[in-house]
Amino acid sequence: MSEGRSAVIEILTVGDEILSGTIVDTNSALIARKLFEVGLEVTRMTSIGDHLEEIAKEVFLASQRADAVIATGGLGPTEDDRTSQAVAQALGRPLELHEPSLRKIQSIFEAMGVEMTSNNERQAWIPKGSTAIDNPMGTAPGFAIREGKCLMVFLPGVPRELERMLDETVVSLVRSHLGGPRFIASRTLRLFGIPESRIDNMVRGALDGLPGVSLASLPHYPENRLRVTVRGADPKEVASILDRAVGLLKEKVGSWVYGEDDEDLEGVVVSLLKKCGRRLAVAESCTGGLVAHRLTNVPGASEVLEASYVVYTQEAKEQLGVPGGVIEKHGVVSAEVAQYMAQAAASKAPPGTVGLGITGLAGPTGGTEEIPVGTVFIAMYDRGQYWYHRFRFRGGRGNVKTLASSAALDWLRRYLLGEDPAQYNVPWRQGQ
Amino acid sequence: MSEGRSAVIEILTVGDEILSGTIVDTNSALIARKLFEVGLEVTRMTSIGDHLEEIAKEVFLASQRADAVIATGGLGPTEDDRTSQAVAQALGRPLELHEPSLRKIQSIFEAMGVEMTSNNERQAWIPKGSTAIDNPMGTAPGFAIREGKCLMVFLPGVPRELERMLDETVVSLVRSHLGGPRFIASRTLRLFGIPESRIDNMVRGALDGLPGVSLASLPHYPENRLRVTVRGADPKEVASILDRAVGLLKEKVGSWVYGEDDEDLEGVVVSLLKKCGRRLAVAESCTGGLVAHRLTNVPGASEVLEASYVVYTQEAKEQLGVPGGVIEKHGVVSAEVAQYMAQAAASKAPPGTVGLGITGLAGPTGGTEEIPVGTVFIAMYDRGQYWYHRFRFRGGRGNVKTLASSAALDWLRRYLLGEDPAQYNVPWRQGQ
Repeated sequence: MSEGRSAVIEILTVGDEILSGTIVDTNSALIARKLFEVGLEVTRMTSIGDHLEEIAKEVFLASQRADAVIATGGLGPTEDDRTSQAVAQALGRPLELHEPSLRKIQSIFEAMGVEMTSNNERQAWIPKGSTAIDNPMGTAPGFAIREGKCLMVFLPGVPRELERMLDETVVSLVRSHLGGPRFIASRTLRLFGIPESRIDNMVRGALDGLPGVSLASLPHYPENRLRVTVRGADPKEVASILDRAVGLLKEKVGSWVYGEDDEDLEGVVVSLLKKCGRRLAVAESCTGGLVAHRLTNVPGASEVLEASYVVYTQEAKEQLGVPGGVIEKHGVVSAEVAQYMAQAAASKAPPGTVGLGITGLAGPTGGTEEIPVGTVFIAMYDRGQYWYHRFRFRGGRGNVKTLASSAALDWLRRYLLGEDPAQYNVPWRQGQ
Repeated sequence: MSEGRSAVIEILTVGDEILSGTIVDTNSALIARKLFEVGLEVTRMTSIGDHLEEIAKEVFLASQRADAVIATGGLGPTEDDRTSQAVAQALGRPLELHEPSLRKIQSIFEAMGVEMTSNNERQAWIPKGSTAIDNPMGTAPGFAIREGKCLMVFLPGVPRELERMLDETVVSLVRSHLGGPRFIASRTLRLFGIPESRIDNMVRGALDGLPGVSLASLPHYPENRLRVTVRGADPKEVASILDRAVGLLKEKVGSWVYGEDDEDLEGVVVSLLKKCGRRLAVAESCTGGLVAHRLTNVPGASEVLEASYVVYTQEAKEQLGVPGGVIEKHGVVSAEVAQYMAQAAASKAPPGTVGLGITGLAGPTGGTEEIPVGTVFIAMYDRGQYWYHRFRFRGGRGNVKTLASSAALDWLRRYLLGEDPAQYNVPWRQGQ
């Protein structure tokens, strides 16, 4: 790379299902983000269909225009998958059998006890002179090939396979091909319970005067994120400016920040429970298991999550320990039922377990004037004490489930950090 | 359009935030889908950044290549928004003030009681010779311009504004420009439990001889989909060929098809439970609430889902009704524990409720030689009878949860359809 000129980096996506709008291309954004994180900026993204001639033409043109090309799709086992063949044709390099990839594909099929078809063997053929890229999550290897000054990398389109290959091989391959002493660092603050427009007002001007800093506000339902990026020539200075920028932002909106970068709300809650030596039991009605599902996505959740009782019917709630009379008197969507649910869940677990109870109306039908769709009561029980809040969440059934589960986790997080659980100041909370 | 050649239709997206991966470009898929529904197929999608020269170059090239171009982004009020200027430069047509658009923008600001800035006036300037396209949801009008044989349409990037403009004006504009009474219809079959390569082998040649038919294989983890599309001049004939094609495909792979088009597995299971007058109770360990979460995403799930007990610890399993001795003797990941879980869940519900029990090791740690990570036992209990299968799922924690929940739902679906639950032939099942 010559000084003073940015690298031309292109992403190429192959697949009829993208051109028909059947699927949204999320791979291009994933690749762009991974490259951006190491200071590389994408110049162009192109999507084309599964036609051999068209892929070949585009591969050739990209090889002439760009310093690096990352292509995805068309490496699967079916007749539609023509990328390798197109590359061979465009760059004049015949396909060769890559023996280690063939052996790997064979062993995957053996382990599954499934007969391998000749289709699958096709995936082990890559253009002559290219380097195979291991695919730890699937059968199709990727491959990298140099054409003049351009490094071209071809990867499968399955997102989880792609992500792993980017992380393990491709990003560093592209970075070392392009070189260049420019440093970039970024950090993302994750906020829950405050609208984007309010965040914008609160942080406006906060980073003025810090060199090389940019700030992006990224709504990420149901959260909002703030990403601060610093570019500069000196890695130490970049890191120190980033720390100062994050500190300044936290002075403004720190009380809504629950985590940074890849930390998600459920991961933060599991960590806090471990740190505080506490265990949790949940009784869920309208969230339908989503709180438990989110918590159990975190490795090691079994150390802190005792159980979650998804009690969807009145009988199931009574089975759990909510008195039938309480349901009759106050209604199933009520503070009292939420409190009994929280206590019942906790009381089935060892002493000292925190209980959460969630009951509400996810809709789309069943709303009344007093209890409209989206009304949710969340209660917490801890060693003889109760608290609850009433919420009104907007949107469809999925939105209500998502927001209610996030509010329950965020409220518990604040409690574990020592905040008063009687206070919980988010826009969806309704006066009691 | 001359006969025998398909129209070249391109989508162009402008915006730095797409190239950095900050946002995923969903607009291109939206446009493609709307065009596909009226029989128009997109040839290429391109995303570029907010640089005047680059936008101008791409607009010029697209005008030479394509019969129709739909571009989005870069029409906003800020300095970053340079699309109109780039079009003016690329096609040699100076910007002109479009008075009706200016008056509309002024009236929107008056209605909001907000002072209009000169930035907003910029949005009313469009290239000479273009036709303004009304934007009922926002301030920036779109515009359409003819360059030789090519119709170019420029639209704002805000999805809800874009969608309304596509529906009200743009799709019919493009269609009438390209002409030709051509009809298209498609249907998607959704399959679970059969690898893509095997599907491909089984359906190969099945549709040979049917006119205007194309078939796409779409992996959609953890499922696979087959989309058949028919094009023709006569709408009735298109519909009848589509029915025949779907029938032929089902002869080949029908036993793996659980649904069509937008039907998901959980929705199919909820419908079948209703139709059979059955209710369900679940006890989940390694799936951690995901089965309940998926079922409760379906409106009306409360009519058939009794409860799900997410019993994560040994104590919680014993509380539910799994004897401690059984856990000690057989281990927590065992057929016996799964069976007790299924029965315990069912026995807390009204008589005749079907019970499912799921226990396994989602990982990433804790595996042994006998019970490696990914091992899952799924048991069903119905009115005194038990069945179970042992599975080995690959991938990370999330993959194991997803596959196990899908296998449980699919196995139940087959049982409700009258299949023998002792048989369940999917690649992850292990001999007993």
